[in-house]
Amino acid sequence: MNDESGSEREISESRIAAADRRYMKRALELSKRGQGRTCPNPLVGAVIVKEGRVIGEGWHRGSGLPHAEIEALRSCTEDPRGATIYVTLEPCNHFGRTPPCSEALIAAGIAEVQYAIADPNPVAGGGAARLAGAGVKVAGGVGRREALELNRRFFHFCLTGRPWVILKAAMSLDGKITGATGQSQWITGPAARRVVHRLRSEVAAVLVGVETVRADDPQLTNRTARPAVRQPLRVVFDSNLRLPDQSKLVRESPEQLIVFCTRKAGAERIQQLSRSGVRVIRQEGDGAVDPAGALESLGGMGVQSVLAEGGAGVFTSLVRADLVNEYYLFYAPFFIGGPTAKGVVGGPGVAVLAEAPRLTVAGVRRVGNDVLVHAYREELATCLPV
Amino acid sequence: MNDESGSEREISESRIAAADRRYMKRALELSKRGQGRTCPNPLVGAVIVKEGRVIGEGWHRGSGLPHAEIEALRSCTEDPRGATIYVTLEPCNHFGRTPPCSEALIAAGIAEVQYAIADPNPVAGGGAARLAGAGVKVAGGVGRREALELNRRFFHFCLTGRPWVILKAAMSLDGKITGATGQSQWITGPAARRVVHRLRSEVAAVLVGVETVRADDPQLTNRTARPAVRQPLRVVFDSNLRLPDQSKLVRESPEQLIVFCTRKAGAERIQQLSRSGVRVIRQEGDGAVDPAGALESLGGMGVQSVLAEGGAGVFTSLVRADLVNEYYLFYAPFFIGGPTAKGVVGGPGVAVLAEAPRLTVAGVRRVGNDVLVHAYREELATCLPV
Repeated sequence: MNDESGSEREISESRIAAADRRYMKRALELSKRGQGRTCPNPLVGAVIVKEGRVIGEGWHRGSGLPHAEIEALRSCTEDPRGATIYVTLEPCNHFGRTPPCSEALIAAGIAEVQYAIADPNPVAGGGAARLAGAGVKVAGGVGRREALELNRRFFHFCLTGRPWVILKAAMSLDGKITGATGQSQWITGPAARRVVHRLRSEVAAVLVGVETVRADDPQLTNRTARPAVRQPLRVVFDSNLRLPDQSKLVRESPEQLIVFCTRKAGAERIQQLSRSGVRVIRQEGDGAVDPAGALESLGGMGVQSVLAEGGAGVFTSLVRADLVNEYYLFYAPFFIGGPTAKGVVGGPGVAVLAEAPRLTVAGVRRVGNDVLVHAYREELATCLPV
Repeated sequence: MNDESGSEREISESRIAAADRRYMKRALELSKRGQGRTCPNPLVGAVIVKEGRVIGEGWHRGSGLPHAEIEALRSCTEDPRGATIYVTLEPCNHFGRTPPCSEALIAAGIAEVQYAIADPNPVAGGGAARLAGAGVKVAGGVGRREALELNRRFFHFCLTGRPWVILKAAMSLDGKITGATGQSQWITGPAARRVVHRLRSEVAAVLVGVETVRADDPQLTNRTARPAVRQPLRVVFDSNLRLPDQSKLVRESPEQLIVFCTRKAGAERIQQLSRSGVRVIRQEGDGAVDPAGALESLGGMGVQSVLAEGGAGVFTSLVRADLVNEYYLFYAPFFIGGPTAKGVVGGPGVAVLAEAPRLTVAGVRRVGNDVLVHAYREELATCLPV
């Protein structure tokens, strides 16, 4: 009977779809093991399934190392001929530091490829088409939202050429990032600082304004227990180069320091800093550093993600230019108040509340005695590659 | 053998303690059914247990109605002689609108009374002593922390003579409660406003500054689906009586309105407002309204709890005088920025961060698209009655 067989087909299809989601979820979990080590590559995980049995698993362990598909093929406990591979990103189709995964999957006799999201990289993309052309069944889309969230920084960079920008601020419950006389260390507690060190381990660069360097003399390194693969680049917005030569950033690791200035900076000072190993980039304007231009420059150097850590001047210029993609806002449980204590965002302020750009709150939680609000610019759901 | 019997006794005692906690938890749950209806009485719940069986339950349903113990006795499915009663507050010992619970428990032949917390009310207290004197076994302390949290407003009022003060603010992520040109309706969304209406249903009075009345012309009533037992009193700090006669507060319910002014207010204006039914209280100072004095006055009228809803002037005076007991801070997911947008707390600001009084965050959660931070002044754990 038509009705019954239709219904049976639906049940069977929904059972397959549930299995697909489960295997892709496992692949997404595996991918996270490469966190902080794969840049400039994305995080990728893969699971190979034959006749309902997982026969291989892999993830991209680090830049220059084999891709997740290759790791999964190598780990197979039986012949992968006829199997299905679940992979969190469309298999690549190009010879880079490793040969194309599309060819390896075809050679291994894989019958079906399920990928969560298409490769936004025009150089590496085209894997799905190559596989389909070779007679492999190919489908994309299961776990797409999670895969996008996982590699949001990579996708944003591939699609825009600019780094993904995370704004991290530590403030009082009334939004102040300094006390009335400028004090800013420490507003939040040790648990919040541990989260910040983890963030530093996951980004390509950390950005501050010169006022923050002058006030706090920070190192801006990842000093977590987990050994760092590499420290993030340090970036300073410093229109007329008031960065002290005695600051830790200049003294301890000048070769990892990029300073943006404008025509306000003297040529002599530029040479002086450059001689000490600092990369100085002079913008054409004669006012404050243009944040969009600086991000373009950083993108051109292959910097995929930037953690902006302060101060109010940098935050304000990024927020007003709508360049922040993600927020980590820490609130310490007290009020500072007062007109001289700096707010997290300055500028003239929003007059019509309905016109303030709304963020999407992804989560709120307590971190030690502090509160963390994690939010995205609306963009995340809408920046999907086609 | 001594060791073994000691161990057996411990096991048996810990089993009893676990049962005590379970029955008290049930009594605490029952007590909450009276939420918003018992004022000026506290919330109280009671469970009667005989030979391991619950034979009666009750809670205080509303002011003027029987106490929880009496409700529980009346509900008994078998003779309560020899039973244990678990009650969230020390049984009362005085003739008020109802006879003393201590006598009713003695008359019913109750063998043991377990109460969570002592009665802080010097008039009603003494029940435990009366019961013990009559040969009833009496113990206090199980569930004490929960019982204190449940009736924190009542305890604070009994112990200090002043109302418990809740500060509720709706602000942007950067702590602004108005836009750059003063706009404040609406910063947060409908879900947050529903929480506020629930809060209004649980307090005796709502407090605002005259600027808020002039800017928003609020009603300050509980307009939730749940029918209100009574609307909260409306309290306005208005040092020189600039409250408009045309405001909803004056026009719609003058008899529920209390206005605090100072010597700055003219005698004629005081008479004018008084004639319309408004209660005007003039303080002796000639500056802003003194918040501590106003709370003393409200306490003298039997007001046990106040919800301060704005604006920045009222918040600042309450916070600076350390008079706020509890905070409901709503953050809408956007930044306002700017020096003219009002911050939730004004004043000169804290200079030395370590000296800012720390709150205790009790919880954080999303409410619609907004974030709610619920916090206490440190006091809660330390304001226990002896």
